[in-house]
Formats: sequence, C-alpha cells, structure tokens
Amino acid sequence: MMFTQADHEYMSLALRLAEQGLYTSTPNPRVGCVIVNHGQIIGQGAHLKAGEPHAEIMALGDAQANFPKLIQGADVYVTLEPCSHFGRTPPCADALIKAGVKRVIAAMQDPNPQVAGSGLARLKAAGLEVKHGLMEAQARELNVGFISRMTNHRPFVRTKIAASLDGKTGLANGESKWITGEAARQDVQHWRARSCAILTGIETVLADDPQMNVRHTSHARQPLRVVVDSQLRLSPSAKILAGGNTLVAYLRDAENKAEALTNAGATLIKLQASDGKVCLKQLLSHLAEYGINEVTVEAGQTLNGALLSLNLIDEFVFYYAPTLLGADARGMFAIPVLKNMEEKVQLSILDVRQFGQDIRIRAKPISKP
Amino acid sequence: MMFTQADHEYMSLALRLAEQGLYTSTPNPRVGCVIVNHGQIIGQGAHLKAGEPHAEIMALGDAQANFPKLIQGADVYVTLEPCSHFGRTPPCADALIKAGVKRVIAAMQDPNPQVAGSGLARLKAAGLEVKHGLMEAQARELNVGFISRMTNHRPFVRTKIAASLDGKTGLANGESKWITGEAARQDVQHWRARSCAILTGIETVLADDPQMNVRHTSHARQPLRVVVDSQLRLSPSAKILAGGNTLVAYLRDAENKAEALTNAGATLIKLQASDGKVCLKQLLSHLAEYGINEVTVEAGQTLNGALLSLNLIDEFVFYYAPTLLGADARGMFAIPVLKNMEEKVQLSILDVRQFGQDIRIRAKPISKP
Repeated sequence: MMFTQADHEYMSLALRLAEQGLYTSTPNPRVGCVIVNHGQIIGQGAHLKAGEPHAEIMALGDAQANFPKLIQGADVYVTLEPCSHFGRTPPCADALIKAGVKRVIAAMQDPNPQVAGSGLARLKAAGLEVKHGLMEAQARELNVGFISRMTNHRPFVRTKIAASLDGKTGLANGESKWITGEAARQDVQHWRARSCAILTGIETVLADDPQMNVRHTSHARQPLRVVVDSQLRLSPSAKILAGGNTLVAYLRDAENKAEALTNAGATLIKLQASDGKVCLKQLLSHLAEYGINEVTVEAGQTLNGALLSLNLIDEFVFYYAPTLLGADARGMFAIPVLKNMEEKVQLSILDVRQFGQDIRIRAKPISKP
Repeated sequence: MMFTQADHEYMSLALRLAEQGLYTSTPNPRVGCVIVNHGQIIGQGAHLKAGEPHAEIMALGDAQANFPKLIQGADVYVTLEPCSHFGRTPPCADALIKAGVKRVIAAMQDPNPQVAGSGLARLKAAGLEVKHGLMEAQARELNVGFISRMTNHRPFVRTKIAASLDGKTGLANGESKWITGEAARQDVQHWRARSCAILTGIETVLADDPQMNVRHTSHARQPLRVVVDSQLRLSPSAKILAGGNTLVAYLRDAENKAEALTNAGATLIKLQASDGKVCLKQLLSHLAEYGINEVTVEAGQTLNGALLSLNLIDEFVFYYAPTLLGADARGMFAIPVLKNMEEKVQLSILDVRQFGQDIRIRAKPISKP
C-alpha cells in the first residue's frame, strides 16, 4: 500500500497530538487525529483522558468550530482505528460517517483481535475510502501498554536498571542510592509518568524506603505503586504508602500486618504461590484487569531475575554510570546459573543515549525460536 | 598562543601522517611532519620504524626531491618536538637548521621531562621561529604509550573487557567465548595491533587457551604476549606460546615447569611477590624498560581487579553485547568489597560507539583528589 509524503506529514502530526495524552489517557490509548481538506488542516484533536471525547470527536469539533464547510469530503488521519462500539462515548466511526468525510487513514487497527478492523469495515460499508498501516510502528510504540493489555492480557513491562559500568546496581551491603546522576534520574521520571504502575520488590523497599512517585510534574495522575511482598514484611510507616495508591501483593500474612497496612492506606491483594513466592503472572494479569497498560519495574536482582526467567520483561532501560563497584557488589538479575552460552538471554538494542555523565541503553528481548 | 586555521590544517595532515606508524613505529613514538612554503605543501614524512629516519628527515627528503628551492624559509609542522640528541639517527633539530627552514611548529614537547624543550631551544638559538601546543591533545592521544613510558616509567595500560549488558564476562563455569560479535572482535584486533604487548592472566589462558595474536593483518609486527602466572601453571603446549614472543611472569616454579616452558619458546621472568602474587608494578616497570609503550589487557576478573586496585589502568574499553548472563556469572573486576559509595571507582566516558550488535564504551579513570 502506497502512502504519499503528505500522508506521512499529516500522520506525523496526528502522532504528536496523540503524545499529548502520554501521561493522562490511560487506561485508554493515546490517540491523535488530523482532518485535512485539499491540503488544508481543518481540525486537530487528541484523546486526553478516559471519559472525555475521543481524538476523532475532538478533531471534528475543532473543524466544526473553524471550517464547518470543509468537513464534507475531508480526509481523516487517525493514529488508531476509530471505534465502532458504544463505550463511555458513542462510536467514532458513526460520527465520521455522519460528518460526511471522504477518506479515513488509520495508523493501525484496533489491537483487540476481537474487534480489529470492525471500525474500518463500518466506515467502508458507509462508502468511505479506508486505509491503514501508515506509520504503524510509531503508533504501536505510543501504545505498547494498551496493545499488550488487549492482546496478551497483561501490561507492557519495562524494567529500569541503574548500574555501574561493571553491571552492579548496589553494594554488597545493600547501599544503592545515587549510582546515576541527575539527568538520568530525571529521565526515569518520564518513564514513571507514562506508566500506569511502578512495580518493585520488598527488598528494595526495605533497603531504600523509596517513595516511587512522579516528582516535579504538573500531571495530577500518580502511577499505582505495586510492591511484591510474599511474606508481607512491609512496614506500615514505609514511605511508599504515603498518599495511598499502593497495592501490596502477598502470599502469607505471617506477622499479622494486614490490618495495620490497610489502615496505613495500602490495598492488599493475596495471590497464588509460584515456587513459594507471589505468582508474577497472576499479578500482571490482575493489573491488566485493573486497567494497567504500562508497568515500570524498579527493583533489585531478585524480582528482576524472576521476571526475566518468566520472559515477562518487554523492554529494558539500562542506565550506566561511569563508575565501577567490583564483582562482589549487587548484580542485575538473579536467575538460575547458566550451563552454556546457548542459554544466554538474547536482547536487541533499541537505542543508546547519553544523559549527563551516564549512558542509557534501551533493549528488548529477542524471543527464542 | 594563537594558531591560524591554516596551521590547524597542516598539523591535521601531520597527525594523519603520524598515524601511518601506528602499528609499526614502536618503541619509538608515532610522528608526522609537513613542510609548507607560502601555502604550498612541499614535503611530507612519517616515522614508520625504529632505526629508520625520523618524520622531519623524511619530510625534508621529500621536499628536497620535489621542491628543493622552496625549503629555504619554509614552515615545518611536526607532531612532536624535534630531537636534539644523537640516538640511532643524528638530531633532527640540526637537520632543520641546516636546511634553512624559517619556522617550526610542534604539536607537543618531548614527553621526557629531562629533555623537553631542548630541541625547540636549539632551533630558537639558531634563529628559527618556534611554537608548540598546536593540537596537542590529539598528538598526545597518538602517543599515550610513549608518553607514559617517558614520564611514568611504565606502559600505558588499556584494559579491554567484553561483557553482557549485565556486566558479565563469562559463565560461572568459565565459558567466556563469543560473547561479543564479529565487528567488536575485529575492533579488538585494532587495539592489539597498536599495542606493544598483550597482557593476560593464567586463569584466562587455562580456561580459553587463546592465541592472543593479531590476525588478518599485513603488519609483520606481533605484540609481545605476557602471561601473569604466579605459580607457573602454564602448559608448554598452550597456544599462547606458539611462534614464540611470549613472556611469562612468575613467582614460584612449584611444578618444575620452567625448562619445558623455555623449550617451548617462552621467556620466563621471575618477579618479586606482592600479596603472594606477581608484583604487577614491577612487571610494568620491566615492560617499560623493555620498550613497551602500550599494553592491552585481556584478562579475567582476578587480574583486572588487581590492576584496578593498584590504579594501574589508564583506559577501559568495554564491549557490551546485547545479552544477559545473570548475577551468578563472572564479573569484571574482583576487588575488595566496597563499604560505601564513596569508595566507588569513578571513571569518565571518552566515547560510545556501536559495533554491529554490540556497544563499545571507552572510559578513563578520574584520579581521586
């Protein structure tokens, strides 16, 4: 399928509009829409918040306010297939048909395999010209979490690790703070802000007493904080409970802490066991049901290793500080000892960037055959 | 001191000429020379091999052959201060004076503090205009090894480490081959080729039986191979002994292997002990006396850690393959356990580059106050 350079430019704009919802649209996808009539942009819109109008409706409203006579026969560029069902809002496909636009180009189809293509089919049935697949990779990147939840029924899991150049995340005694510099830590805030949840382990909480919230931001939304704490060792005075919005996944309440933790604002969820620990697959499946699209993991080698062993990590964000901590310091992933090189976990590099003195390497797993 | 853009261009050319000696000039420095008369380049030269003429003499010869009448009153750009003493060749300063050039610009002074400036002083005394310091950083970079040997009486030590993204150089069982890909391994050949010696430890030799030579090259010169083997455990049939040119530094010949190793072509050197192992400072000092400028270390965590603890590493070349090996795999540097973050080894990044699927990060230590 061929798209013109103009098509790419309009879809680029639609993608930039979609980014406006990066920190706010969840659990809904980030979607942008541009309406064009004979080379003139007549409407722009983005979906910013669940319950508010979808991007297509925003763009139609914009066009209606400024160029009402040019909507008839216009081209619509939208980063996600228009919906064809009644959700919290009426179907966008119907609104586009009613508005009399001529052509709809979607970057990607609805990721939900049950409904993929039905919005476009509805438009086609009404006589509109329909295409999809323009800049699809970029559109998917914007909604990795939503897509994962729709297709795999679990959130997209992004693991952030700050380490020395010799791959150490902390000292043998547990000290791990401030390995990386300010610029890298600021970048981490960006991953946190776009996430629906931040996942950590009880070891990290006991060692560092972190808050795990999004700082220096004008966005009201704070991601859900999730602590994996099989034996419910969390202290009711832990900073991660401050302000509520914290989920604690556990197996056993050996010390009878559940009530105190609940009183401290924690939401407790008792999960099934897997190898004597909280079943992480069940946890992620639960988070997906809860509407969590993207999860940022900020944990130590135990939880990181468990997630890695279960192939549950979709993306790795490594920050390397120009320092060395020595072979006895803490590693990144506690996984069963490899017997030979064929067992190594193979990744592929997504990008490499410098943040202040530190280097960020993003990578994703290569699925084994 | 101000230099013109033309000065920079001529010195750039001289530096590129100097690079012609990168793989061959040792133990002498890499030096290039350009002679210019009123904007016309009339002579170029490089020092390629000990015993052969210096760069200034080569450039004068080139000018003599092509533009003999233009040497008088010319400007000379040379990457290192011309020598003023009789070595294997007569002093270049005298040759320049005799040739009648007007001005000499050196990128840097002689690194030997005993003679620094004496060549330039000799030129000045003869009435020539003299400057130095043009593109000095680049000139020093070309001769880090020669400079280290002249000023610190030990070679420049460059440690190469190939690791996974979690900082692991091999499996717990010792398997370490082929972590990085072909492009990175080819780049390692370049570091080996410019080195006078490759330093490794007996553990690496016993585990991998490496050859540690320069492959796929037209340069006849092979770096000296040096094995740190305190207890003289090396096998006379080890591949690292093939072809000779291998030095084995040891403390004790417990198994009476010295004769067999010597017969197998090894040069044995018994050194003093430091903490029960070969004294690495003495080894480096010995290598400097032997005329070794640059050393590439390709070793495991024991030797790497020992060199790091002694602050003997001048540059780190890390290659990270997009793979994970897990916390139990082999680390980079076995050093004493750090008690707090203030004890961390602080580096600064020199550059970051991608080689095929792998990422190379070069770094140097920041000396502590």
